[in-house]
Amino acid sequence: MATAGKVIKCKAAVAWEAGKPLSIEEVEVAPPQAMEVRVKILYTALCHTDVYFWEAKGQTPVFPRILGHEAGGIVESVGEGVTELAPGDHVLPVFTGECKECAHCKSEESNMCDLLRINVDRGVMIGDGQSRFTINGKPIFHFVGTSTFSEYTVIHVGCLAKINPEAPLDKVCILSCGISTGLGATLNVAKPTKGSTVAIFGLGAVGLAAMEGARLSGASRIIGVDLNPAKYEQAKKFGCTDFVNPKDYSKPVQEVLIEMTNGGLDRAVECTGHIDAMISAFECVHDGWGVAVLVGVPHKEAVFKTSPMNFLSERTLKGTFFGNYKPRTDLPNVVEMYMRKELELEKFITHSVPFSQINTAFDLMLKGESLRCIMRMEE
Amino acid sequence: MATAGKVIKCKAAVAWEAGKPLSIEEVEVAPPQAMEVRVKILYTALCHTDVYFWEAKGQTPVFPRILGHEAGGIVESVGEGVTELAPGDHVLPVFTGECKECAHCKSEESNMCDLLRINVDRGVMIGDGQSRFTINGKPIFHFVGTSTFSEYTVIHVGCLAKINPEAPLDKVCILSCGISTGLGATLNVAKPTKGSTVAIFGLGAVGLAAMEGARLSGASRIIGVDLNPAKYEQAKKFGCTDFVNPKDYSKPVQEVLIEMTNGGLDRAVECTGHIDAMISAFECVHDGWGVAVLVGVPHKEAVFKTSPMNFLSERTLKGTFFGNYKPRTDLPNVVEMYMRKELELEKFITHSVPFSQINTAFDLMLKGESLRCIMRMEE
Repeated sequence: MATAGKVIKCKAAVAWEAGKPLSIEEVEVAPPQAMEVRVKILYTALCHTDVYFWEAKGQTPVFPRILGHEAGGIVESVGEGVTELAPGDHVLPVFTGECKECAHCKSEESNMCDLLRINVDRGVMIGDGQSRFTINGKPIFHFVGTSTFSEYTVIHVGCLAKINPEAPLDKVCILSCGISTGLGATLNVAKPTKGSTVAIFGLGAVGLAAMEGARLSGASRIIGVDLNPAKYEQAKKFGCTDFVNPKDYSKPVQEVLIEMTNGGLDRAVECTGHIDAMISAFECVHDGWGVAVLVGVPHKEAVFKTSPMNFLSERTLKGTFFGNYKPRTDLPNVVEMYMRKELELEKFITHSVPFSQINTAFDLMLKGESLRCIMRMEE
Repeated sequence: MATAGKVIKCKAAVAWEAGKPLSIEEVEVAPPQAMEVRVKILYTALCHTDVYFWEAKGQTPVFPRILGHEAGGIVESVGEGVTELAPGDHVLPVFTGECKECAHCKSEESNMCDLLRINVDRGVMIGDGQSRFTINGKPIFHFVGTSTFSEYTVIHVGCLAKINPEAPLDKVCILSCGISTGLGATLNVAKPTKGSTVAIFGLGAVGLAAMEGARLSGASRIIGVDLNPAKYEQAKKFGCTDFVNPKDYSKPVQEVLIEMTNGGLDRAVECTGHIDAMISAFECVHDGWGVAVLVGVPHKEAVFKTSPMNFLSERTLKGTFFGNYKPRTDLPNVVEMYMRKELELEKFITHSVPFSQINTAFDLMLKGESLRCIMRMEE
């Protein structure tokens, strides 16, 4: 490519300060260094995590920064040592990586790569501790190794999943984060069997993806639990058969669920991050075989409390990170699930705007009106 | 048999009051009723649970009672409807049963039978609510459906495992409870893979059985954790490679273990029932793949507390009851493990006394001198 080895000037949405609207700027994107890849982003989506670090409440503020981590793009050029990707390959960037060499990558069970595990405070590349983005020579920080709110970005090769080039990037881009997280929590960790009962706590995009996993598993009864009754209607598209609003009951919701299911759920997946919901999700599963899976990220000081007898009566509690998917190894297969029309991604995409209207996407999410809003880099 | 259908007079050790020495009495044992089996006990062993309910501290006192639940015997006669067992069959009584018809028995994952699940307060048969033991016409209560401290006892057919008649009952009798509980916790629930690292909390008989499971699984490093340093020497016979006494450190033992193992154990099995040990056992396992299994029965009011982030970084916490073995389906196979000389039971049998000296067995256990003391019904 003509641009390989050269600085590319392009548009990016820069967050200059916490909570202030992003501004579209011309940035210089340096060529990829060793083990890095420069990617032309075609579509990017907005996830709660972007909003969370943009608000930077209780987080280390790292500004100016280019946010964004759900996206689909095409490799523009590769740095030294990159052999698995070549210009033209279609890729999904992922906020956590897979080096394929550490104990976690070698374990069949873990996807928490030692080298490329998510780091929300780091704003630079791990190779040389520098940013690849500048404006008039001043560095702009990266975000979770992806920074997809830019027409071009530089990403470590270990954080890129090479996917089927026939897959529509405006759809599969949402597999970069939230949808895979929820889907994998059910398919890879909770693993409900056909005909089983599943409760999903929290019916945002991640919870609905967990629900989609329950539907794909052939669960016979899928109970959605949310404080907002308006969520039920949308959840029905994802297989929700019953809805429970904890606010409608004076007793703990786990007791309500146990009564509804003659002793408890076969599986529960917690996608809110609220500690009370985590405890309820665990305590609502059936003795003997029930499995609860925690997905939502809790407050730093939260403490999980329960009677140990709940474990001794053969309940299991697990947590998951990115749905236990290994980014490079597993995401291409998730894309194929969509290509075979098993996994229905369209249901999650409620809005689409040109990249220039990125602040509209933020507004929609803050108002709770969108599940996923796709931003088109080419208007 | 000449005794079938008739009352049998025989010797039994009766606990008349909490904490008072047992006394050997002549008792009448009624014939088995529907779905019941009368068993001639040849060998019985003493387990902590017998001592616990004999002391009856904080338990519902049920006296006079015939304790005992680890044993090996031969079927004397069977009641109406019993088709799976016949006089002469060799059996192991189990304190919890397997009806083969409830949701738990039909589940591949559970062994917590709805009909015959352990009930420590019930002193009678479930069929008619009566005791089968009397002295001068006055009923003597049963214990967990087994009451093996008697030359003859009556047991529900669902609480008897039919085993290989060539298996020596003076050895395999200890598979009725504690040894299977510990062994199964490791083999069926923790499931360490070959070469993995395992921590065992509490090096009593159950903990050493869990350790035997780790040895059989091919664990490369087995760390015993106990407050009593004298336990290390004995534990070495069970594969213990390292010993940690939490009292030797000022920091929490989970931190010590994490440092020793470069990030944490692959598996941990908790066999003390102390809540602090439960929390340590969970928090010492490796992120990404660590699994901790709770075996020890906690104090009723105990609360398990941990940061939910410990789950979200892909640790799993499970509990088990009787090592997840289904008594009738699985125990015969555990006996075969012994017959194939894989499982070494002799290491657990530290003492043997005639039945008449049952109080000696209690003394040995109370002093912590025995792992298992076998009582021989025929001197």
